[in-house]
Amino acid sequence: MYDAEIAEGWDIGGNANGGYVIALAARAMADAVGRPPLTLTAHYLSPGKPGPVEIDVDVLRAGRRMATVRAAMRSADTDVLALLGTFADQTPGGPSQIVGTPPELPPIDECVHAAPPVDSGFHHRVRSSVRPIDAGFRDGHPSGTAEMQGWFELPDDQPIDAFGLLMAADAFAPVVFNSGKFPVGWSPTLELTVHVRGVPAPGPLRCRFFSRFIENGMFDESGEIWDSEGTLVAHSRQLALIPRA
Amino acid sequence: MYDAEIAEGWDIGGNANGGYVIALAARAMADAVGRPPLTLTAHYLSPGKPGPVEIDVDVLRAGRRMATVRAAMRSADTDVLALLGTFADQTPGGPSQIVGTPPELPPIDECVHAAPPVDSGFHHRVRSSVRPIDAGFRDGHPSGTAEMQGWFELPDDQPIDAFGLLMAADAFAPVVFNSGKFPVGWSPTLELTVHVRGVPAPGPLRCRFFSRFIENGMFDESGEIWDSEGTLVAHSRQLALIPRA
Repeated sequence: MYDAEIAEGWDIGGNANGGYVIALAARAMADAVGRPPLTLTAHYLSPGKPGPVEIDVDVLRAGRRMATVRAAMRSADTDVLALLGTFADQTPGGPSQIVGTPPELPPIDECVHAAPPVDSGFHHRVRSSVRPIDAGFRDGHPSGTAEMQGWFELPDDQPIDAFGLLMAADAFAPVVFNSGKFPVGWSPTLELTVHVRGVPAPGPLRCRFFSRFIENGMFDESGEIWDSEGTLVAHSRQLALIPRA
Repeated sequence: MYDAEIAEGWDIGGNANGGYVIALAARAMADAVGRPPLTLTAHYLSPGKPGPVEIDVDVLRAGRRMATVRAAMRSADTDVLALLGTFADQTPGGPSQIVGTPPELPPIDECVHAAPPVDSGFHHRVRSSVRPIDAGFRDGHPSGTAEMQGWFELPDDQPIDAFGLLMAADAFAPVVFNSGKFPVGWSPTLELTVHVRGVPAPGPLRCRFFSRFIENGMFDESGEIWDSEGTLVAHSRQLALIPRA
């Protein structure tokens, strides 16, 4: 059992950012097995609020290379997060076959800082910047395509490790805001799975998030995160509820 | 705790099919909360062998609509599977926005029954049939594209429910067999996540599995499963190790 703290200033409108709380739990899980996350799934039970939390970590299997770990994060009065993951160091090399390329983005200073239209401590801690076309929803001009493309950085050029990739995977506004069919409101993530596929080279990350299947009140959101050398370093997918007015 | 049994005849070369053991565990989880799976993640700890298993089910939260559940399946001498999922009935309706269409497939009787080139009880229990181009790897002629497209049915036109969709999500040969860069051998799945997105209309399912990111010894495999009315009913993704000779 790990004692941790959801720090002040990582919130969006009072609730801690989902990627931040996942990264917090993942650090405890990684500590227990001495390896970083390789594939991690989190189910959100309730929004995280600043303050102390307990993280129960349960190592289910620790092999030579891989370890499988589950965890639950709880605050004094509520369950916040349930997680299940396999942890392992990356083993670069071997044949590769990649379909797709990093998104072509305008320079960062021509992109729009992705802070949402509510108070967001989180967006002072990390910097996610979207293409101008993907920021139009904030003024009532959604692009019409359920997609967000942009840059992700940490302040002061801090290197981005596996835990930073977990944060990047949930650092942009929900892609449904650009579909034009739904109000801009809270769209609760039920589950987020991140595959960490590489160790990022220094520099900002290029990110593309999109949904293909909005139906029956839910949507998928897939994410690709590419490093400055054009390597796919993380691949995410979540299932979330469409926002209601 | 549920007592269950990995039945004889659901194996591929002696190991129970992954989708079958997931569906077995999911039935216990669904029983505990009275709802079918909505998004379920499984991490494979060791291959399932025929015989009795115990399924520990732990309900983490049961709300009005959603329930979050974790589980572990163990046989007498080994851990088989760890799972985490959110369970809920489908609530059809509302605006939809779909990118993509069901795969265009040849008629089932022009497709190739996807039984692998080893003894496979599993492929007598379910019927997965791929396009001829996707079966060429069995004779040393992989298509060159890490993709498998085909039909999925249960015998005697049994209706396919959420548990059937879990089986469909792991009922085809690994897509890397068609990449042409790797030997046809065991490619262990580390983690499989399935989003159940609808209740299938009667009739065979159209399935498309593909990988976009084969690198660093691993590959993703994404799956789309469409029903006979052209509705996307399941969306899967797994992370697996590339096969070795």
